[in-house]
Amino acid sequence: MPNHATKTALIAAIDTMRNTRPLVQCLTNNVVTQVTANVLLAAGATPAMCDTPEESAAFASVASGVLINPGTPSAEQYAGMRQAILGANSVGTPWVLDPVAAGALPHRTAFSREILAYRPAAIRGNASEIAALAGVGAGGRGVDATDEVEATIPAARDLAAQTGGVVAISGAQDVIVSTRRVTRLVSGHPMMQLVIGTGCSLGALVAAYLGAHRTAVASRDAFDLHDAVVAAHAHSGAAGMVAAQRASAPGSFAVAWIDALYQLTSERIAELVTIEEE
Amino acid sequence: MPNHATKTALIAAIDTMRNTRPLVQCLTNNVVTQVTANVLLAAGATPAMCDTPEESAAFASVASGVLINPGTPSAEQYAGMRQAILGANSVGTPWVLDPVAAGALPHRTAFSREILAYRPAAIRGNASEIAALAGVGAGGRGVDATDEVEATIPAARDLAAQTGGVVAISGAQDVIVSTRRVTRLVSGHPMMQLVIGTGCSLGALVAAYLGAHRTAVASRDAFDLHDAVVAAHAHSGAAGMVAAQRASAPGSFAVAWIDALYQLTSERIAELVTIEEE
Amino acid sequence: MPNHATKTALIAAIDTMRNTRPLVQCLTNNVVTQVTANVLLAAGATPAMCDTPEESAAFASVASGVLINPGTPSAEQYAGMRQAILGANSVGTPWVLDPVAAGALPHRTAFSREILAYRPAAIRGNASEIAALAGVGAGGRGVDATDEVEATIPAARDLAAQTGGVVAISGAQDVIVSTRRVTRLVSGHPMMQLVIGTGCSLGALVAAYLGAHRTAVASRDAFDLHDAVVAAHAHSGAAGMVAAQRASAPGSFAVAWIDALYQLTSERIAELVTIEEE
Repeated sequence: MPNHATKTALIAAIDTMRNTRPLVQCLTNNVVTQVTANVLLAAGATPAMCDTPEESAAFASVASGVLINPGTPSAEQYAGMRQAILGANSVGTPWVLDPVAAGALPHRTAFSREILAYRPAAIRGNASEIAALAGVGAGGRGVDATDEVEATIPAARDLAAQTGGVVAISGAQDVIVSTRRVTRLVSGHPMMQLVIGTGCSLGALVAAYLGAHRTAVASRDAFDLHDAVVAAHAHSGAAGMVAAQRASAPGSFAVAWIDALYQLTSERIAELVTIEEE
Repeated sequence: MPNHATKTALIAAIDTMRNTRPLVQCLTNNVVTQVTANVLLAAGATPAMCDTPEESAAFASVASGVLINPGTPSAEQYAGMRQAILGANSVGTPWVLDPVAAGALPHRTAFSREILAYRPAAIRGNASEIAALAGVGAGGRGVDATDEVEATIPAARDLAAQTGGVVAISGAQDVIVSTRRVTRLVSGHPMMQLVIGTGCSLGALVAAYLGAHRTAVASRDAFDLHDAVVAAHAHSGAAGMVAAQRASAPGSFAVAWIDALYQLTSERIAELVTIEEE
Repeated sequence: MPNHATKTALIAAIDTMRNTRPLVQCLTNNVVTQVTANVLLAAGATPAMCDTPEESAAFASVASGVLINPGTPSAEQYAGMRQAILGANSVGTPWVLDPVAAGALPHRTAFSREILAYRPAAIRGNASEIAALAGVGAGGRGVDATDEVEATIPAARDLAAQTGGVVAISGAQDVIVSTRRVTRLVSGHPMMQLVIGTGCSLGALVAAYLGAHRTAVASRDAFDLHDAVVAAHAHSGAAGMVAAQRASAPGSFAVAWIDALYQLTSERIAELVTIEEE
């Protein structure tokens, strides 16, 4: 696919997401709930952090997309996550797995592997998490990518084949993998790693973009699920590039990043990022 | 009541709240704990997020006011909420119900209706939540007001009659309803909807203002509980108006809003907002 | 010890912490998780909020330092805290106790006293919390220091003798006490009390600095555990002093404080603070 077509799809995905304001149900860790909600609002989506076993399934059946991020998983939230996945799958709501610290902690690694069978529409993690989820690599010490992104592409291909979904390896360069495409995206800024929630909220943005694709039947020819995952990464990363022009320390950078998620037009995002199709 | 009297009461309420620094116990959802605490501190109150079943009742008996916001209600937090209400009522601490997503989710709707019998001193929600709590209206899809504020006034009157408390319908225009008064307040800015916690923290501010009324026996003639609820909305809304003059995107808007909650004098708040008594 | 030596140790501690990027496991209250993570990242450490009973012990055995802050303690988090302490002690990971609201709430006071037997490497609290933990003083109403810092030094000495660790009394002037030294530190700004998490994140910074000491064997002669606790307070307090020069309201102050935690060199921190050795 030529890059021109990819950028056209990118712009279509961003415009569609903002026009449809997808309702994103986030079952996520208690460190990033606030920033994740603010990211979704600034980007153009609607957050809802409904995560109890009693309510998760029903909510997932009306949400546009669902995020499963077991970063601080209580027993009750694990139960809520299982319910949300069942509710999502019962009606075809796309759900995203962010396997935080997979490989580093056996309990949550086992959970993330177990729910793979329920076919997440997308998986987003750093290289060590993706490798661990696929059953290869030594894993990291928690949240830092220790394996190289490129070396993880075979593991991502395996996960894509196993689930039928899109797999994103986040890093200095993001690689988005599905059964028929590999896309490399250069965007973002190193200071994003000094702001908590830039990675976790990206998982929520992926759910928003997948939800936009599902909701906007009329726009479905303009971009596919792979493009939707690329768009989430490009939106977040381009905002990081703009924030780095405005701020040189993480407190003000975080504010500028949220501002840019809101202010950047789809055309400007497409100009800022570099996309390469394999 | 003439508007002149209302504004005098507004100024008295704000000054009293800041002079008494009410201790507000928040049993609230895990998305907004941080921003709620920062809002209370900036406005002039003292936050405490004590919400376990073992501690909630004792704390509520010494707090100035209590907020019950079942936005992400774990089983343990539900138990803590019931304890807090009992502790509050045992000594007359005013408590506020913010029925997040009532109508959209049956489990929490049932909880919010059940605790109505314990007579919250105030209820704060958007139009669809207030309608659902009163048993009318179809409810929204979670957090957005889908019914019109004006159409919800009869439901608010019902709730006020049932509980003896003040009922606030938040929206582009807020309407505060009690058995003998209806007050319309114009303040705020649409960008507040793009910052998570502006609504939830308003429930905490209502608890702060009610607590200030209870604590400041000497000032009680200067404003009543209805005025206290109006003051909470005016304080938050006026800060939003100032923030919109300083910022045009949600990241910097959120910072400017917290700043303005701290900086605005009571007189300036009274100048900024428009109040109409029915 | 002359102040010259103290400042040399301070600079060594800060440089070592930033060079080693200690991994700090925080079992903390759900109000401050986000700001605590951002403080650690800006200061130069790596946060991880792993707190479940299943994962806490294993994680504590690989972490550089552990924070135990029972500010909103669910039953499951209490269990996670006990596991984390066992895991930390099994390999010698230093852990920090922040006894939030000890004295004000019996349940958590009992918990904090119970875990004293497991010998925290440091305890950090305000005067009323330290007094209550030592079994003296009337305690405060939750989060404000009501006893004087100076009057609490004997209680801190008792706790230091009992645990073998360092005890920090935070206030307008901080006092750091161990069995052989008493250090008074003047830094910070009153506006820090209007930003939630400035105190709780200081407990996390103490864990980071203790972890840096343990990890950096080659630097261990340059500073000891007492110096490490002083350095955590100096780093946070100096950043508050800079923030107060840049901002005059709590929203923008919070942003400037995070920025300064990142930007300040160790030499500049040593210039800004006043340290007095007894």
